[in-house]
Amino acid sequence: MPFTAIPEIGEFGLIDRIASLVASTLPAVPELLTGIGDDCAVFRPSAELLQVSTTDILAEQVHFDLLTTPLQHLGSKAISVNVSDICAMNALPRFALVSIAVPASFPVTMIEELYVGISHAAKEYGLAIAGGDTSSSRSGLVISVTMIGEVSPELITRRSGAQPGDLVCVTGSLGGAAAGLKLLMREKEIMLNHIENNEPYTKSVISDLNEYREAIQQQLLPLARIEIVRLFHAKHIQPSSMIDISDGLSSDLQHLCRHSNTGALIHENHIPIHAGTRRIADELQDDALTWALTGGEDYQLLFTISKERYQAIAENRGISVIGEMTDPESGVHLCDMYGMKIDMESIKGFDHFSS
Amino acid sequence: MPFTAIPEIGEFGLIDRIASLVASTLPAVPELLTGIGDDCAVFRPSAELLQVSTTDILAEQVHFDLLTTPLQHLGSKAISVNVSDICAMNALPRFALVSIAVPASFPVTMIEELYVGISHAAKEYGLAIAGGDTSSSRSGLVISVTMIGEVSPELITRRSGAQPGDLVCVTGSLGGAAAGLKLLMREKEIMLNHIENNEPYTKSVISDLNEYREAIQQQLLPLARIEIVRLFHAKHIQPSSMIDISDGLSSDLQHLCRHSNTGALIHENHIPIHAGTRRIADELQDDALTWALTGGEDYQLLFTISKERYQAIAENRGISVIGEMTDPESGVHLCDMYGMKIDMESIKGFDHFSS
Repeated sequence: MPFTAIPEIGEFGLIDRIASLVASTLPAVPELLTGIGDDCAVFRPSAELLQVSTTDILAEQVHFDLLTTPLQHLGSKAISVNVSDICAMNALPRFALVSIAVPASFPVTMIEELYVGISHAAKEYGLAIAGGDTSSSRSGLVISVTMIGEVSPELITRRSGAQPGDLVCVTGSLGGAAAGLKLLMREKEIMLNHIENNEPYTKSVISDLNEYREAIQQQLLPLARIEIVRLFHAKHIQPSSMIDISDGLSSDLQHLCRHSNTGALIHENHIPIHAGTRRIADELQDDALTWALTGGEDYQLLFTISKERYQAIAENRGISVIGEMTDPESGVHLCDMYGMKIDMESIKGFDHFSS
Repeated sequence: MPFTAIPEIGEFGLIDRIASLVASTLPAVPELLTGIGDDCAVFRPSAELLQVSTTDILAEQVHFDLLTTPLQHLGSKAISVNVSDICAMNALPRFALVSIAVPASFPVTMIEELYVGISHAAKEYGLAIAGGDTSSSRSGLVISVTMIGEVSPELITRRSGAQPGDLVCVTGSLGGAAAGLKLLMREKEIMLNHIENNEPYTKSVISDLNEYREAIQQQLLPLARIEIVRLFHAKHIQPSSMIDISDGLSSDLQHLCRHSNTGALIHENHIPIHAGTRRIADELQDDALTWALTGGEDYQLLFTISKERYQAIAENRGISVIGEMTDPESGVHLCDMYGMKIDMESIKGFDHFSS
């Protein structure tokens, strides 16, 4: 494949290539009447459903490092993190608008790789890529995705409906994305050190990352838990509150408690942490529980549900009960292995602007 | 007012400030059931209307230069350019999601200035700021706005409906935004030269920009032509095709012709150019017609309409008829002052990636 720089095909040439790469996402959403190519996308909303919308901006060197991130994975992740927010409302995604600001020096094939990942993920989730914007950038790749979903008013789930006594549940396992990130950062450092010292960076010094495949996949290619939302819809379950875990369990549980005006008590030994994540933590002399509490980017769903309603999903082995909502005066606490209560406010999640 | 850097108040502190600045935009849109503060915004769409959506990404040093752009104006412009796309579908804006990626070194007051401009513009257009995302940036300010609008199926206007014989109309006047940009770039160069040469940059060397107020305002603070859409709705007019002029008349007219499968013939002496724009062009030894054809960023509406329907708006002095759509074989031409036909394909509009 010959090298083509973006200026060779121009802005409109680039848009044409993008439009043809995402065309395969359109048949899944017949209510999308116009996609890329006009001033706006046109959608016929359902008369019975509420509409939910979310947006995430991903910046190079802040959210991703192109040295360790394949562009197809990055495209998929940009879609998944938005689907995860849609799922956190108990809604299903319908369409997305994708904007990129990209250095003019990027080869066209790299942009195409990105959109292959975007299209692939969109098809997996059943949503259409309806439009977007392309711009040059003086400073690295920036991806901004906005997504629209739909949900019936009886099922929509906010952060604010939890009651004391509700069970606190989490899907999947936590801490894996942080483990993957630490491994990728270690590998990058080894590589850069070898380059700096003019030492050969050969197969013998490269870790066999296959061993850590699961954790690295959770970092580079997280998947939103749309099948949990489908399960809720099938059983007509409206959790009392829900959020997706993007900042870490500690921070996101505190969000639910603040919005619902409750406290919470969760138990360390009920927090689902994959054995592989614990092994990586041991190897890196780090702490898997800290990763689960503050690492973020796991994109699992954290929700609360009354004990009665929980019975309908109790058999699902991918959902863990980790504690209970309490009255607001009790605060938000983690009960550790030794029965000690730790105030969750002392456990900080990710802050983009913290130093 | 004391200086506060973003890390002092943290990401959630920043989001709280933004939420309070945009709260005044919410009452105009009662169908927005949840704004900033949950995983998604929640909107109850109209059962009778179609929904249109658009997005624009603005990057520092590409779309704006903070040396010459007040942040309130930048915030307003980020909203207006999206409203302009909504208007180009003959739709009215309902709500927007606003994302920013911002260097952690930015003072909080600068972000507040930006959102004062965003809120002010949103209120002028009657739309709500429903959500967004905040991130740090390693490399300059990036603003991404996505906007949702509504329009009845009988009035929605695409690029593709024009017929040979339809009149080609444009609102307002063209070339002013390009004139304003050239002036601002001249002033910036004068300023930087004085600084480089250690010469005092005093009042005597600063041009009296008041003289050029109109052109500079068209560049820094363009306004979308929402009142034209309101006029169309009041008279129940659906133009046969429409686009907003963001790339320049030449490029945007060719878009209409390509999508509608027509040609067009427009007349130089009918293109509305403000006398002030011509004066600035003379002063800068530049060409006002070139600015009108290729300068872009005027955010006027370019539309086509049958001669019969045009009668209903013929009295509006803010709409100029500049030519007629023709059959596709005739191509897209400009007839100049001397009656010479110039192929519009030879007149290029703005391309983000052209060198």
